[in-house]
Amino acid sequence: MPAPVLIAVDEDSGIGVLTLARPRQRNPLSVATMREVVAGLTALSANTKVIVIRAEGPVFSAGHDLREMIGRTLDEERAIFETCNEMMRTVQSIPQPVIASVQGAAVAAGCQLVAACDLAVAATDAEFGTPGVRIGLFCSTPMVAVSRAIGRKRALQLLLTGDTIDARTAADWGLVNFVVEPEALETATTELALKIASASPATVRIGKEAFYRQVDLPQDTAYAAMAETMASNAMIEDAQEGMTAFVEKRAPVWRGR
Amino acid sequence: MPAPVLIAVDEDSGIGVLTLARPRQRNPLSVATMREVVAGLTALSANTKVIVIRAEGPVFSAGHDLREMIGRTLDEERAIFETCNEMMRTVQSIPQPVIASVQGAAVAAGCQLVAACDLAVAATDAEFGTPGVRIGLFCSTPMVAVSRAIGRKRALQLLLTGDTIDARTAADWGLVNFVVEPEALETATTELALKIASASPATVRIGKEAFYRQVDLPQDTAYAAMAETMASNAMIEDAQEGMTAFVEKRAPVWRGR
Amino acid sequence: MPAPVLIAVDEDSGIGVLTLARPRQRNPLSVATMREVVAGLTALSANTKVIVIRAEGPVFSAGHDLREMIGRTLDEERAIFETCNEMMRTVQSIPQPVIASVQGAAVAAGCQLVAACDLAVAATDAEFGTPGVRIGLFCSTPMVAVSRAIGRKRALQLLLTGDTIDARTAADWGLVNFVVEPEALETATTELALKIASASPATVRIGKEAFYRQVDLPQDTAYAAMAETMASNAMIEDAQEGMTAFVEKRAPVWRGR
Repeated sequence: MPAPVLIAVDEDSGIGVLTLARPRQRNPLSVATMREVVAGLTALSANTKVIVIRAEGPVFSAGHDLREMIGRTLDEERAIFETCNEMMRTVQSIPQPVIASVQGAAVAAGCQLVAACDLAVAATDAEFGTPGVRIGLFCSTPMVAVSRAIGRKRALQLLLTGDTIDARTAADWGLVNFVVEPEALETATTELALKIASASPATVRIGKEAFYRQVDLPQDTAYAAMAETMASNAMIEDAQEGMTAFVEKRAPVWRGR
Repeated sequence: MPAPVLIAVDEDSGIGVLTLARPRQRNPLSVATMREVVAGLTALSANTKVIVIRAEGPVFSAGHDLREMIGRTLDEERAIFETCNEMMRTVQSIPQPVIASVQGAAVAAGCQLVAACDLAVAATDAEFGTPGVRIGLFCSTPMVAVSRAIGRKRALQLLLTGDTIDARTAADWGLVNFVVEPEALETATTELALKIASASPATVRIGKEAFYRQVDLPQDTAYAAMAETMASNAMIEDAQEGMTAFVEKRAPVWRGR
Repeated sequence: MPAPVLIAVDEDSGIGVLTLARPRQRNPLSVATMREVVAGLTALSANTKVIVIRAEGPVFSAGHDLREMIGRTLDEERAIFETCNEMMRTVQSIPQPVIASVQGAAVAAGCQLVAACDLAVAATDAEFGTPGVRIGLFCSTPMVAVSRAIGRKRALQLLLTGDTIDARTAADWGLVNFVVEPEALETATTELALKIASASPATVRIGKEAFYRQVDLPQDTAYAAMAETMASNAMIEDAQEGMTAFVEKRAPVWRGR
């Protein structure tokens, strides 16, 4: 069986790409695949500036592998969802921004993966949903990411009906950032990745870590934490260089990774 | 005086309907009415799969009955808002999804009731607002539900200006899910209810309870709780049947309520 | 050097106006300016019903004064962001609603200031962004306000790309409330301010304070707090007058400030 997850690095640009590579099975997020995603993201994190998660074939991901969930013990079920949580946590805890690049269906844990990514670019043929309710298994872990991305009423609509939304609606609801024609998906994703890769990696790392640290805090607590983060950020070499370059109307030269 | 709240159950479909039935008074949410709504939802909860809240007449609900609030003691005022809180809490704490079906004005506590429902279908002539500021009584309990549904700037706009928004804007802001022509309101609501009623009631119950339990938690805490919820969900008979039926490409047969 | 901040009160209407008045420098939020904003808002708070923050020139505000951040100690950097936090906190802690009236660029701390205001009116030529990432200094304090205004994916888009969005997009995302032609900006802002100024100041004060107190709380805690707030609000003279006037179909007469 070919590897379910492929990784590649473009050393010139610093863009890492993780590909879900079991298109004929609709890229199921089996436990083995989720562990490979964690391992792949961790490996890419060692020498990239930004990471793209993409998929081969007409479907981004149909979610968990149902055959792994039939006839199991409670502890076996727990292990599946804990592995899934670890994958989603890894997407947000690695220092590099992670961009989902989505064509076709991204449903259940596949939709959750898109919601968990920092940014998402979708082809016009993409669709998103949390259809677990239709097969008796409510999408309760996906709803953590999805309800935080699109709000309560819209999350409940996807969760309770199991219906999917198209890419334009997903952009309108804030689940994805950009929608492009399918033939432009790779180019649009790469352009977005290149833009982020041109920034100071040290600064991006500070910012991504800070974002998730502050987003669930009460506002006052968040402000206090972010003032300290931003003051420390201002002291690093890349910030001093960036501000000086801006004042001097020249391009900054980043110290590196 | 006729009863301010009517309830009905369609036993074939499992759809319960609660109707605000004082159209000439603009369906005021008096203390007596709110208590009847709580009692009605609780009663419907015993033998339905999904519940619709609708209203007779050209107005969904104009909110509290102002005459109950004039010349009262602080404890009497407290009793009103505590009853109102109990009504909103009941909408979300009963296991069945609750769908608001809205024509005409839904303002103040009427708007809050729509915001508190799990889903909402609105006629094109519906309008929504929190106009208490215009009469000296800021819509402070409605803003709990409304600010969580539509975000800060938009909630403050409704709260500080007292202006209403139309149904299309409400859908654009995520306060309602669907907008249809007035003559299609009942059909559209019923179709939505039937879709939800066709799912496993046990699964829907797990999902609705879990949704409100996780939505205010920090993300990491929510993920930990939902992994446990989803693992337990996977063990129930309807989930095993649903997953097996999906794999076998046949329709699932739910065990029942 | 002229004062960086001007304040004015229209005594008839009760509208206070704070103007950022260093247009040739793109209205930088230097420490001195931020302190003047705090002092100006505090002064206006003594005798107004609503406050407008506007700016002279083609740019609303380009954010912090970078020259103050180059070659400083960590404690000096901390002082800058603590002053900035104090300014944002003051906007929300004074009893009067604060309306941002925005033309041209509002970026970095300038964008944060708009996000922190209770309401915002933008000219069609306005643009918004958090471009700190491009100069090595991630907009970590702006992201507190921006992520709470527009949601996670959209906030990360602004933060990670440094790109700006136009006024229509800002309205679509809930960062601003209204978009008007540049020549209508002042009129539209004043009309909005007048509408709020016509309400009971005591009621508006209760409502604004309550809004920020409840918005970060778990829903149940928020409901309990707001029932008490609303019961107390119902007891004040302006609420009794407002409700009575409404029932009697006449205009209310507010007791005053």
